[in-house]
Amino acid sequence: MKIEIFDSTLRDGAQSEGISFSVSDKLNIVKTLDDFGVAYIEAGNPGSNPKDIEFFEQAANLKLKTAKLCAFGSTHRKHTAVEDDPNILSLLNAGTDSVAIFGKSWDLHVHKILNVTLEENLALVSETVAFFKAHGKEVIFDAEHYFDGRKANAAYAMAVLKAAADAGADVLCLCDTNGGASPITVRDGTKEVVRAFPDVRIGIHCHNDIDCAVASSMLAVEAGAVHVQGTFTGIGERCGNADLSIVIPNLQLKHGYECVANDLSMLSEAVIKLTEISNLVLPNNKPYTGASAFAHKGGMHIDGVSKLSKSFEHIDPSAVGNTRRFLMSEVSGRTTVLAKLKALAPELNKNSPETADIVSRLKELEHEGYQFESADASFELMVLSQLGRFKPHFKLCMYRTSGEFPFPSGDESASAMLSIEVNGKIETAAAMGKGPVNALDTALRKALNVFYPELAKVSLTDYKVRVLTAEQASAAKVRVLIESTDGAVTWTTVGVSTDIIAASWQALVDSIEYILNKKEEEAS
Amino acid sequence: MKIEIFDSTLRDGAQSEGISFSVSDKLNIVKTLDDFGVAYIEAGNPGSNPKDIEFFEQAANLKLKTAKLCAFGSTHRKHTAVEDDPNILSLLNAGTDSVAIFGKSWDLHVHKILNVTLEENLALVSETVAFFKAHGKEVIFDAEHYFDGRKANAAYAMAVLKAAADAGADVLCLCDTNGGASPITVRDGTKEVVRAFPDVRIGIHCHNDIDCAVASSMLAVEAGAVHVQGTFTGIGERCGNADLSIVIPNLQLKHGYECVANDLSMLSEAVIKLTEISNLVLPNNKPYTGASAFAHKGGMHIDGVSKLSKSFEHIDPSAVGNTRRFLMSEVSGRTTVLAKLKALAPELNKNSPETADIVSRLKELEHEGYQFESADASFELMVLSQLGRFKPHFKLCMYRTSGEFPFPSGDESASAMLSIEVNGKIETAAAMGKGPVNALDTALRKALNVFYPELAKVSLTDYKVRVLTAEQASAAKVRVLIESTDGAVTWTTVGVSTDIIAASWQALVDSIEYILNKKEEEAS
Repeated sequence: MKIEIFDSTLRDGAQSEGISFSVSDKLNIVKTLDDFGVAYIEAGNPGSNPKDIEFFEQAANLKLKTAKLCAFGSTHRKHTAVEDDPNILSLLNAGTDSVAIFGKSWDLHVHKILNVTLEENLALVSETVAFFKAHGKEVIFDAEHYFDGRKANAAYAMAVLKAAADAGADVLCLCDTNGGASPITVRDGTKEVVRAFPDVRIGIHCHNDIDCAVASSMLAVEAGAVHVQGTFTGIGERCGNADLSIVIPNLQLKHGYECVANDLSMLSEAVIKLTEISNLVLPNNKPYTGASAFAHKGGMHIDGVSKLSKSFEHIDPSAVGNTRRFLMSEVSGRTTVLAKLKALAPELNKNSPETADIVSRLKELEHEGYQFESADASFELMVLSQLGRFKPHFKLCMYRTSGEFPFPSGDESASAMLSIEVNGKIETAAAMGKGPVNALDTALRKALNVFYPELAKVSLTDYKVRVLTAEQASAAKVRVLIESTDGAVTWTTVGVSTDIIAASWQALVDSIEYILNKKEEEAS
Repeated sequence: MKIEIFDSTLRDGAQSEGISFSVSDKLNIVKTLDDFGVAYIEAGNPGSNPKDIEFFEQAANLKLKTAKLCAFGSTHRKHTAVEDDPNILSLLNAGTDSVAIFGKSWDLHVHKILNVTLEENLALVSETVAFFKAHGKEVIFDAEHYFDGRKANAAYAMAVLKAAADAGADVLCLCDTNGGASPITVRDGTKEVVRAFPDVRIGIHCHNDIDCAVASSMLAVEAGAVHVQGTFTGIGERCGNADLSIVIPNLQLKHGYECVANDLSMLSEAVIKLTEISNLVLPNNKPYTGASAFAHKGGMHIDGVSKLSKSFEHIDPSAVGNTRRFLMSEVSGRTTVLAKLKALAPELNKNSPETADIVSRLKELEHEGYQFESADASFELMVLSQLGRFKPHFKLCMYRTSGEFPFPSGDESASAMLSIEVNGKIETAAAMGKGPVNALDTALRKALNVFYPELAKVSLTDYKVRVLTAEQASAAKVRVLIESTDGAVTWTTVGVSTDIIAASWQALVDSIEYILNKKEEEAS
């Protein structure tokens, strides 16, 4: 059975704390969602601000493949005729084939927020829906606070839906606006409505305030809903909306519904792209598309997955464009290492002496506090070193960092100088910075630029510090993880020391050696 | 009705990517969970590594109020008698009243992973449970992959439970190990088991691979389960476990179950504390406890909440110790601050101008990245400063730290000198150290010793660094938390800067000022 996927990233998603989309961000999001194959893209109220007016003008020129754009607004104002209400007219002028209209279905809100009688609210709903139908629009009616309304006054909540349906609404969408309805409530409420309106498509719109938005959406579909609203990456006001990147595979891969026409092998890419556009960090533990979603750490699980992939995976990761990962850790043994070595040194097997050397070096380093589960690049350099296949590209002669109070210059509280040697040639550089690590990083880049100008493209994108032996207080050992990028690929390196400068230095050096080595291997 | 809450942060949570708990982290987690009131704390296999042996030894000395510690292991090995299996014996020696034993309930795993016959596996389950019952333990039997097993061979999955129940298991816990079972499957499967074993407590253990762990746990409880496993902050292998910080309020606040004896006003504090110990960042959009969970951005929503709080909030945020925020026009969390002020300045009330000053200073500092939830001593100094009741005991004239490569002396990679002034008298001191912070700490103590010899008893016991703005890489802002003790009491202070030395310095200074001030107040 087909399920209509209705994405509200541009409307409900934009209500998320810290989110602010430019017009070009919005157009980019529309293209990404359309490429993936959603049915509807809701895009805010064209009358609410100039940015939205510009967006609708530009969006009209996009040639969308699967998605319909949908403008969003409320029922008309209480003392204004529907055809004179400027918000209603701007919705009409947005030029979309579909409009989403929200109206009150909780009697409390009718009285206390709208300040109209229950009958007046029914008229607002009915007149607004009828107006858009008369202008040839598809109308999706969003019943705001439907489940709270049903609890307070079930007959009235149902009467609001009837007013919309009688006026010609194409979809009646039940909204759990406050996000607090339990999955059971959502299922039971949806079932009633599906029964009451056999000729209208029923939709569901859940928020995640009790962490049940995905489950409730699934239960609503099981109860007969055929239209699911949410945002593709789950962003939205407060705790977010139903996460469509999870609802879609749950329904399509596991329950046989058709949400999009394609398979889902582009799911991870779409999520990464939308997360990037939103300037957010993709959580590692995100179902289906997170970096840890198919990562195995426990020795028994790694052993199990190696014997039989479905033993500890609910789906094949490639079905959603993700990949399996084995994490290095104190609980993992030779099997994990071998699985990781496959690409680097396919000639090795469990009994090769090199494998034993690598495992024992790994254990030594882990004992010192290194952690390679996310530091793939440092792991690769360690393996290549052990195999005698790595030659450093520069040598540190000396560095000196200085942290000072009072700060020497504005918020630049530190300075660093260093000398490096490349093929017998010594280069010395110095820099100031916001702290000694920042100063050292900048000085190192200056010096390296003389020999490897291609490094200008490389920058750090993430910096993590973990104190390992907190009980030793200011003499504690720290582990530093650095993520770097050259614009095309991203890699992570690690360093450990009681001195945060020294630990950061190791991770910095690994970061640079890794990419220089990679470029060389690619060139040869 | 009472529901047993079983926390597996120390076992399943430790399988999370990037998580590595020290023994002192683990003891801290146990205390936090016990203070909150969970019923069980699962703590790994005492035989698996020296760190866990040490933990169980130290944990035996904790006086827990509500929680029982529970050791975790598998059914005994196939060719070893249960009483000779070293893993079984180390579980026994852990000295806990309860043990959690997992066994296979999916026929595929029995054949392909364990490589035994179906009957042999029943014997492993039965013998292991009987062994621990004979030694007087409470036994929680975890049926691994129960829902996959039920789908593949329902009669066999049920037979495994029967073997455990007949051998005396106190709890039969149904585990969705791969995290792919739908909430409906979990509910139906649980219902069957509750019906089949009316005299045994039934438990549920869900993973979040399809984002339904919380919903499935709730549906299992609705179906008759009385024991819910998960991790307090949702951490766990792959996509994590059922998040108890959400399951508990969902069940207790919304459905009338009793999960813990207390109300839930300490929920946010417990979540923040556990997140800190795990060195993770609390997601803003986390249900109930995230910073955005009750944050309102949309104009209509802000207006609605101002008119009528429940119009856009599913619960009152104070019920879980969180606060409402309006993102456009920030309104203070005055109630929270007042609660904190009670001991320091009982004369203040909600309308005192001093309260407003403190709230606004607090907001300013939080905006800069300070966090006072755990840094009580810094909070107290800030309040006393605002009230004009704090006079610093020394003044920093200058410091200079130097980090060098090659290291100047052994593992001492840095040196520091500083000058401080006390009552017009200047003292200058210098020291080497394992990193610049350690050198600065040592030099400061030398200089202060001249004026305040009583500080000799004060030492640092914990040092934490959190990168706040990772995307700015080596110029990132960091927050440092320092825990100090004088042997009798323990206090925590905080510092924030882009320079880790400057941030550490602030926390160090607060630490010393706090205890000097306290001694003075006690003496007067």
